[in-house]
Amino acid sequence: MRIVVANVNTTEAVTGVIAEQAGKVAAPGTDIVAVTPFFGPTSVEGNFESHLAAVAVMDRVRAIEEPYDAVVLAGFGEHGKEGLAELLEVPVVDITEAAAHTASLLGRRFSVVTSLSRTTGQIRDRLALIGLDSRCASVRATGLAVLELEADPARARDRLVAEAERAVREDGAEVVCLGCAGMAGLAEQVEAGAGVPVVDGVPAAVGLAESLVRQGLRTSKVGGWAAPLPKRITGWPITGP
Amino acid sequence: MRIVVANVNTTEAVTGVIAEQAGKVAAPGTDIVAVTPFFGPTSVEGNFESHLAAVAVMDRVRAIEEPYDAVVLAGFGEHGKEGLAELLEVPVVDITEAAAHTASLLGRRFSVVTSLSRTTGQIRDRLALIGLDSRCASVRATGLAVLELEADPARARDRLVAEAERAVREDGAEVVCLGCAGMAGLAEQVEAGAGVPVVDGVPAAVGLAESLVRQGLRTSKVGGWAAPLPKRITGWPITGP
Amino acid sequence: MRIVVANVNTTEAVTGVIAEQAGKVAAPGTDIVAVTPFFGPTSVEGNFESHLAAVAVMDRVRAIEEPYDAVVLAGFGEHGKEGLAELLEVPVVDITEAAAHTASLLGRRFSVVTSLSRTTGQIRDRLALIGLDSRCASVRATGLAVLELEADPARARDRLVAEAERAVREDGAEVVCLGCAGMAGLAEQVEAGAGVPVVDGVPAAVGLAESLVRQGLRTSKVGGWAAPLPKRITGWPITGP
Amino acid sequence: MRIVVANVNTTEAVTGVIAEQAGKVAAPGTDIVAVTPFFGPTSVEGNFESHLAAVAVMDRVRAIEEPYDAVVLAGFGEHGKEGLAELLEVPVVDITEAAAHTASLLGRRFSVVTSLSRTTGQIRDRLALIGLDSRCASVRATGLAVLELEADPARARDRLVAEAERAVREDGAEVVCLGCAGMAGLAEQVEAGAGVPVVDGVPAAVGLAESLVRQGLRTSKVGGWAAPLPKRITGWPITGP
Amino acid sequence: MRIVVANVNTTEAVTGVIAEQAGKVAAPGTDIVAVTPFFGPTSVEGNFESHLAAVAVMDRVRAIEEPYDAVVLAGFGEHGKEGLAELLEVPVVDITEAAAHTASLLGRRFSVVTSLSRTTGQIRDRLALIGLDSRCASVRATGLAVLELEADPARARDRLVAEAERAVREDGAEVVCLGCAGMAGLAEQVEAGAGVPVVDGVPAAVGLAESLVRQGLRTSKVGGWAAPLPKRITGWPITGP
Amino acid sequence: MRIVVANVNTTEAVTGVIAEQAGKVAAPGTDIVAVTPFFGPTSVEGNFESHLAAVAVMDRVRAIEEPYDAVVLAGFGEHGKEGLAELLEVPVVDITEAAAHTASLLGRRFSVVTSLSRTTGQIRDRLALIGLDSRCASVRATGLAVLELEADPARARDRLVAEAERAVREDGAEVVCLGCAGMAGLAEQVEAGAGVPVVDGVPAAVGLAESLVRQGLRTSKVGGWAAPLPKRITGWPITGP
Repeated sequence: MRIVVANVNTTEAVTGVIAEQAGKVAAPGTDIVAVTPFFGPTSVEGNFESHLAAVAVMDRVRAIEEPYDAVVLAGFGEHGKEGLAELLEVPVVDITEAAAHTASLLGRRFSVVTSLSRTTGQIRDRLALIGLDSRCASVRATGLAVLELEADPARARDRLVAEAERAVREDGAEVVCLGCAGMAGLAEQVEAGAGVPVVDGVPAAVGLAESLVRQGLRTSKVGGWAAPLPKRITGWPITGP
Repeated sequence: MRIVVANVNTTEAVTGVIAEQAGKVAAPGTDIVAVTPFFGPTSVEGNFESHLAAVAVMDRVRAIEEPYDAVVLAGFGEHGKEGLAELLEVPVVDITEAAAHTASLLGRRFSVVTSLSRTTGQIRDRLALIGLDSRCASVRATGLAVLELEADPARARDRLVAEAERAVREDGAEVVCLGCAGMAGLAEQVEAGAGVPVVDGVPAAVGLAESLVRQGLRTSKVGGWAAPLPKRITGWPITGP
Repeated sequence: MRIVVANVNTTEAVTGVIAEQAGKVAAPGTDIVAVTPFFGPTSVEGNFESHLAAVAVMDRVRAIEEPYDAVVLAGFGEHGKEGLAELLEVPVVDITEAAAHTASLLGRRFSVVTSLSRTTGQIRDRLALIGLDSRCASVRATGLAVLELEADPARARDRLVAEAERAVREDGAEVVCLGCAGMAGLAEQVEAGAGVPVVDGVPAAVGLAESLVRQGLRTSKVGGWAAPLPKRITGWPITGP
Repeated sequence: MRIVVANVNTTEAVTGVIAEQAGKVAAPGTDIVAVTPFFGPTSVEGNFESHLAAVAVMDRVRAIEEPYDAVVLAGFGEHGKEGLAELLEVPVVDITEAAAHTASLLGRRFSVVTSLSRTTGQIRDRLALIGLDSRCASVRATGLAVLELEADPARARDRLVAEAERAVREDGAEVVCLGCAGMAGLAEQVEAGAGVPVVDGVPAAVGLAESLVRQGLRTSKVGGWAAPLPKRITGWPITGP
Repeated sequence: MRIVVANVNTTEAVTGVIAEQAGKVAAPGTDIVAVTPFFGPTSVEGNFESHLAAVAVMDRVRAIEEPYDAVVLAGFGEHGKEGLAELLEVPVVDITEAAAHTASLLGRRFSVVTSLSRTTGQIRDRLALIGLDSRCASVRATGLAVLELEADPARARDRLVAEAERAVREDGAEVVCLGCAGMAGLAEQVEAGAGVPVVDGVPAAVGLAESLVRQGLRTSKVGGWAAPLPKRITGWPITGP
Repeated sequence: MRIVVANVNTTEAVTGVIAEQAGKVAAPGTDIVAVTPFFGPTSVEGNFESHLAAVAVMDRVRAIEEPYDAVVLAGFGEHGKEGLAELLEVPVVDITEAAAHTASLLGRRFSVVTSLSRTTGQIRDRLALIGLDSRCASVRATGLAVLELEADPARARDRLVAEAERAVREDGAEVVCLGCAGMAGLAEQVEAGAGVPVVDGVPAAVGLAESLVRQGLRTSKVGGWAAPLPKRITGWPITGP
């Protein structure tokens, strides 16, 4: 089985971390192909960047040689799942939904701990559309930017543990989700610190993708995620041809 | 007052219809500047195209010479408002929200009548995020593609009237919203046919934009729609420089 | 265009403030006609008074000489919009809905800052029926009665700024609505203090009313707001004949 | 125990039917005092009339000689409970809430069968504020006006049975509520016809009121239903002094 | 009238308290028959115990000699109402729903004050299914186990008053529900301490049951609570024969 | 990895079908251990039976020799997950949640097609607590009892296809979930007939369980699903010792 894991930002180091975490949980026989967009921001922290990244990921995924069995969209709270789902027949799993669905199996309420507070509203909206906002106790921000998390893992861990503890104590969270693909790899340490299960969206998405592939399930094509109609689109794909 | 009205597709004829409808309701002293994206699909009918259009509109609006007082995003149910709101300080009004807010003033429940059924889910999601899905009785599709609406207005009108009547009779709608910028100009005829107020998102958005400008109100910059952080973004703007 | 703005209490000074704020944002050519009920309480701070005011406003509006193009119901969180909408064909805009719809264009979440805490539940119920409670971060009370706000604007401003700041910091509000018609005129000062857009329902409602009139839109008469059936009503209008 | 049952319209015959139904279920030792407003419409079928009736009922209840132990507001879907609750210390039970709470004990979902379709939205709003709209399968109208129900009970029964059957078969209702005080007395016949429990709001409210009184429970005075503040109110009570 | 009140745990002393409270509010002519399950836990504080108690109560109620007119399920937040409702034709009233429905008549929002924090989520879920979670301001735990409440009423009262006061002050509760059958008898003291109406689910349920019986209402048998189909069930009833 | 799959009814043939379907999708190295309760009904079709089965499954799982890595609760819409989650540290996946989470990855809305209409309400309640009812387009019944499905697979398939098609055409479903463990094995045929992805809860749950185990995730023990407190429980386990 071959699973594409698409980073949403252009920082290769983040792609590397994501690939590593994805690989750790993959079942024997699963190949992980991690890709970085050809254009876009070095980190995604807001709607403008998220819209741009959505297009950059679609542009990047088009360039991947087939066959592959599933795609993981590795941007927490970002736009793009629905568009990618339209373009492909193989299943697309977004790490936000993967984390939320997985956390919902393990406790009554989960919290998300993310990077900057400016992204918390966007995450809540994403959870609302998935339907799992009623299971979400809170979305908390560490105040660290995506690339700061990457640059100083020890500080990231401390801040994550602190916010995770507050989520458990003050908000009633029973599970914590890491709210940023760049946090991949910190789950174990946060779990040790906060005393609750910690879900990292990247391995969660890989697990769900493997499960879908093994069941032979693919994206529904009868409704909202049907293939785009044939039509003239100027300037697409962005990086051509 | 100068209001930019941004079409989301690359069809100039649609931009023309939108500009005309916007102009009809503008108060004396309001200038309408209608623009067409530099790239993207000829019509937007799905998530992939909507994500692409969101970026194309942001790219296009960046190229407009200042000053202007507000921007109207003229794509019904499309992505992009939040990204554009981050990039700008002047208010951004999306025609989906404009239609929904306006219709909510006129009756208990409104229905949306749109083009293809594949877009109805996306419209419902957009209304859910706005908060007005509880006021929405139904989203109905005519089965006509965006450019078919444009090409054959008489047929478009008949189908719109038929679906509007069903929305009133079967779904309990008291107001109908035209669910596609390309339907601009048909409101009066649909109202005559269906016997309920019909809201066209383009003039509704112009009215709201004028009202915001006159009150001196601008997009909030303290939370989810704050200006993007300075960072390296490869390949942006798409049509540079 | 002629817009009636109806105060809900019998305090003429409040009517004066409302009229002034309404006039400031009215487009050229719009006449504001501000009226005071013939009976009822000097301020409206609770359900009993609100029910009474609803009837008093309907009674007062019946006595206005036609023609006029729209009515603004200038009581925040008060009952009466639906009854007035039944009695009239021209659009009726309630300042609660006007503020909520307007604030929703400018940020993800808004808070309302109002007079006494006893009214916050009623405001939340009103927002729930409008559909925008999911956009409402909080309804906060200053603890100042309506007429105290009027009597001591400096103190009112300080309290409003203090609560607005807490709404932003603690509740995640990105926009603040003034939750009392008697606060009209304080928006600018609160905005300066709290650093977020501040929406005053009176000008917001005038803007929406102008927009509706310019679009030729009127209250739907097919459902819940159809004209009352002809029947014998003892003692109506209250102030006869 | 003495329970006041307040009709919302001025039709004495309806008051008589209500009093009869209330009396049938009252426990030994409970006195029913049925009253008719001094002014207002002969039947309440819409928001204007409902607002007027809310005030008329408050005006009428003020004229009742104390002591009494509870008040039943006998208008289905009408305004006024909150205002009356503010004015009194004894509990106030509205027949809408009484029917909805009672029906919720007997099945998963209930439907309301009411008079004219123009009132269904108002009933849904009332249920939404009570919190039990999620238990409501549908609100159906017979198309018979309140006084027609009264005038021709056989026809009323047939229409009620027909709509109740549709509610069960098409909407998934397991219980039916009679959606109009004027239907009091038809519950048994509709139950026989439709094969599900049928709740009449008047006896349901009497039962709840008796239960509250026996438990020594009264309206909370710490929040939204606290007593009105002392202030000058012109023209109140309407029928003074 | 004969009303069965079923304790959910095997502690006879708790059954005694429940019976006493039930008896105090029963109308003249109502007999209370309190029963204790033949097996199960000495107190119910979690899902495992609640599932077990649900079966133990059904097993116990089957052994009661008919006739009786209604059953009260006296476990706050516990499972079992729906199963019992299927097995019987007479109405079944669960004290959770009884407390929530009753409290909703007395104020805008109620809080529940219960035993251990581990049960608060289960109570919220139960309220969500009843539909009244939107009326619930908070579910607070005293930190006292069910049998500690029983063993030391003075301490229980102090803790209950403390949490009730916080519910009023911090969460906006206007009414408080005692969230454990073992608290029966403390309502008056908590009311005196907290200054808001306090609802004890046991008397509330008795009152509702009496009201249903007097109206001749029984559980609906057309849908989700229809009698179980005849089939082979090994080992049932648990305590045979 | 060793995964226990617990049938909820006492019919060994159903256990066999479930085991077979579970085995088909299990990854290499996963052992499936399918178990049948020691007591309870031959099929579970309602709340009474579901409560009984919840206890029977907990009783049965206690008798399984450790170690095992996860438990799948193979009863669609049934009670028991929370209790089992309290008793165990390894993750527990209920096939209802598994199907709903999985279907949510593949399309905007899913429908459930189940056995008898009497169970549809219980399934909706279960989905509501999971949080995914907003993603559920409908729950439809074939009218076939659980054991009829088992006895006549061809007829079961035809009815399932017919209801699945109606769910797609009339309710807007984009994915269909098989709403009964006894339907295991029919997914492929229903998918061929209805033209949308069909999710069978048993393999979906196995996939999720494998994913959780591979990520090292276990049930949270800090809140609602913490281990039961030590206390005296008469008659437990039911089948001793």
